[in-house]
Amino acid sequence: MDKKEHTRRLIVKPLDFTFGETEEDALLLDCGKKLTKANIRYETYGQLNHAGDNAVLILHALSGDAHVAGYYTENDEKEKPGWWDDMVGPGKPINTNQYFVVCSNVIGGCSGSTGPRSVNPETNRLYNMDFPVITIADMVRAQHRLMKHLKIDKWLGVIGGSMGGMQVLEWARLYPEQIQCAIAIATTPRLSPQSIAFNWVGREAIKTDPKWDNGNYTDTVPDKGLATARMLAHVTYLSDESMKRKFGRVLQKSKNYSFDFNRDFAVESYLEYQGLRFVERFDANSYLYITRAMDYFDMSASAAGNLTKALAGVKCHMLVISFTSDWLFPTSQSRELVRALLNNNVHVSSCEIKSSYGHDAFLLETETLGKMLADFLRIQREVMRNG
Amino acid sequence: MDKKEHTRRLIVKPLDFTFGETEEDALLLDCGKKLTKANIRYETYGQLNHAGDNAVLILHALSGDAHVAGYYTENDEKEKPGWWDDMVGPGKPINTNQYFVVCSNVIGGCSGSTGPRSVNPETNRLYNMDFPVITIADMVRAQHRLMKHLKIDKWLGVIGGSMGGMQVLEWARLYPEQIQCAIAIATTPRLSPQSIAFNWVGREAIKTDPKWDNGNYTDTVPDKGLATARMLAHVTYLSDESMKRKFGRVLQKSKNYSFDFNRDFAVESYLEYQGLRFVERFDANSYLYITRAMDYFDMSASAAGNLTKALAGVKCHMLVISFTSDWLFPTSQSRELVRALLNNNVHVSSCEIKSSYGHDAFLLETETLGKMLADFLRIQREVMRNG
Repeated sequence: MDKKEHTRRLIVKPLDFTFGETEEDALLLDCGKKLTKANIRYETYGQLNHAGDNAVLILHALSGDAHVAGYYTENDEKEKPGWWDDMVGPGKPINTNQYFVVCSNVIGGCSGSTGPRSVNPETNRLYNMDFPVITIADMVRAQHRLMKHLKIDKWLGVIGGSMGGMQVLEWARLYPEQIQCAIAIATTPRLSPQSIAFNWVGREAIKTDPKWDNGNYTDTVPDKGLATARMLAHVTYLSDESMKRKFGRVLQKSKNYSFDFNRDFAVESYLEYQGLRFVERFDANSYLYITRAMDYFDMSASAAGNLTKALAGVKCHMLVISFTSDWLFPTSQSRELVRALLNNNVHVSSCEIKSSYGHDAFLLETETLGKMLADFLRIQREVMRNG
Repeated sequence: MDKKEHTRRLIVKPLDFTFGETEEDALLLDCGKKLTKANIRYETYGQLNHAGDNAVLILHALSGDAHVAGYYTENDEKEKPGWWDDMVGPGKPINTNQYFVVCSNVIGGCSGSTGPRSVNPETNRLYNMDFPVITIADMVRAQHRLMKHLKIDKWLGVIGGSMGGMQVLEWARLYPEQIQCAIAIATTPRLSPQSIAFNWVGREAIKTDPKWDNGNYTDTVPDKGLATARMLAHVTYLSDESMKRKFGRVLQKSKNYSFDFNRDFAVESYLEYQGLRFVERFDANSYLYITRAMDYFDMSASAAGNLTKALAGVKCHMLVISFTSDWLFPTSQSRELVRALLNNNVHVSSCEIKSSYGHDAFLLETETLGKMLADFLRIQREVMRNG
């Protein structure tokens, strides 16, 4: 690895791909409605080779976007790199000197792709709550349009954590011939009632904010409601252990309780900060739609709850990774997935990584994760070339 | 046990005790303020014997009240019994034929005792957010006033689950000579940052509701915000396992998703129902104050975080019970308490009960719990009489 590469910024630019201009080209959604004149915001890193066997698709989680790595500017010191910058780039585990990496914002999102805050081409007004309820499979069908646009016949790998992992599983189900390998990290084959419940409460917090206005807010966004939803979700991303180590019962200002209802504990201050930052970069209606897509995610649905039967068509090699302290999508849920894959004689590797970071470990345990992914991708590329 | 006793209702009536009429009699709170002309709503069951050695105090949890058992009417079929009716009554584990049972609503509460929705004697208007921030120890100090009023010198036992267990621990710390035994169920020696975080989010949901109006609501209560807070808390009272068994991913109305944002899953419908019912019987400002009291609960605070030192004065016999699937106050937290008590040579018994009910197990595992408590109380009564 060239040291210079590590000091020089990887510069990327966001790209757009529009589909569904005609009625025939519209995307038929699981709800029965069609999405027309839709945009996908995406970024690419590295070069697609002539053999076309080095393309890797990365799928983002609930609050992620297409900007998986790199920077938009050469010198802006305030700019933060993409959300998985430790994992993706020249000389990094998902090495963009070797792989052509693609990452796109999900439909329903709010970071460039068509979502509830986009203009409805039928009315020329914002969709808001007229946007159709989408599913994880719908997100993947839109990504498949992008794949064709990029003239990629087969992904070497599709990789994602959390909701990104759900998309990985839908890719393996919907397009089994077009994936060499799939890497599902910190995810689940179906959303549990506990997670559905947390999503419900988060959405209620948004709807309670008068500024939400049935989704028709304009300049004054429902910041309080969205911040509350985010804070709740954030607690589920951490582990009890990591919160104890990070915050304990430390007070913000003094040694004594303030005996009021403002932030008193460090953990309260941290959550408030996370809520405020989130409101700056995320949209409340998108939050409703994307959490609903997660609620509806159930890989066993196509076979009436029988996960083994539902996964019968999976053909790619798979790597399933979970983390010991992740209580949102615990290892038991990954194991259920692995058992169903093994029942179908899928080539599946699995690993539970020891970590105290909770669900967020998929973003933080990049050293362990990086080695695993780099090796798996390297081997899969050999298999793909020889097969 | 007389079978007739089981079919005949135990009739109780709520009682009131007022204290702090004079400046000297006012209750000095941890925050430095004084509570004057305050009321404690309480109920009693059974008779105090001449020796005065059969008095048992039961402490309620966050959403509980003084009505621990029995009924207010003879025949109203719609009336539900008290919140621990399986545990307390004639012939029941905490046998009111033998014991004189007392249960009172905590100060700061909204079920008869003085709280934020009571009239401030200084202004003749509702306290609302002018009510002083109280602590678990303050609740216990108020209960100690009631103890004197009832002419009880020593409790045979103080018993409570969840926040009731926190009060049990404060009783053992503040009034070590006045308790024979203490039974702390599904509780913790200090609130964890995770629990503080959940409380914070619940309070934010209440404050986001425009009807909260900085606590000054009159007829239109902040029902949406309080319901959201309750739904969030409710998820933490259940276990992932019990939610899977109780709800799974079952849909409410049809076999297919509704593709909207109304309640679709059985678990959403259940939560919505729980939220609505809670708003009918609980006050939003009380919810703020009581959760804040829990945040501030830390048995190790008096010795700068050293739990063993902080518990050095505990003299009573103790029983500490936790439940396997309780992730809100997990067994590890009870064990920390038990270790600190053992370091002080306190007579402590402990047990982790196998249950899938999560934190709610303290209200539901009454058969196992009943046997344990009945035996422990019986033995303690012998010890008290012989000692």
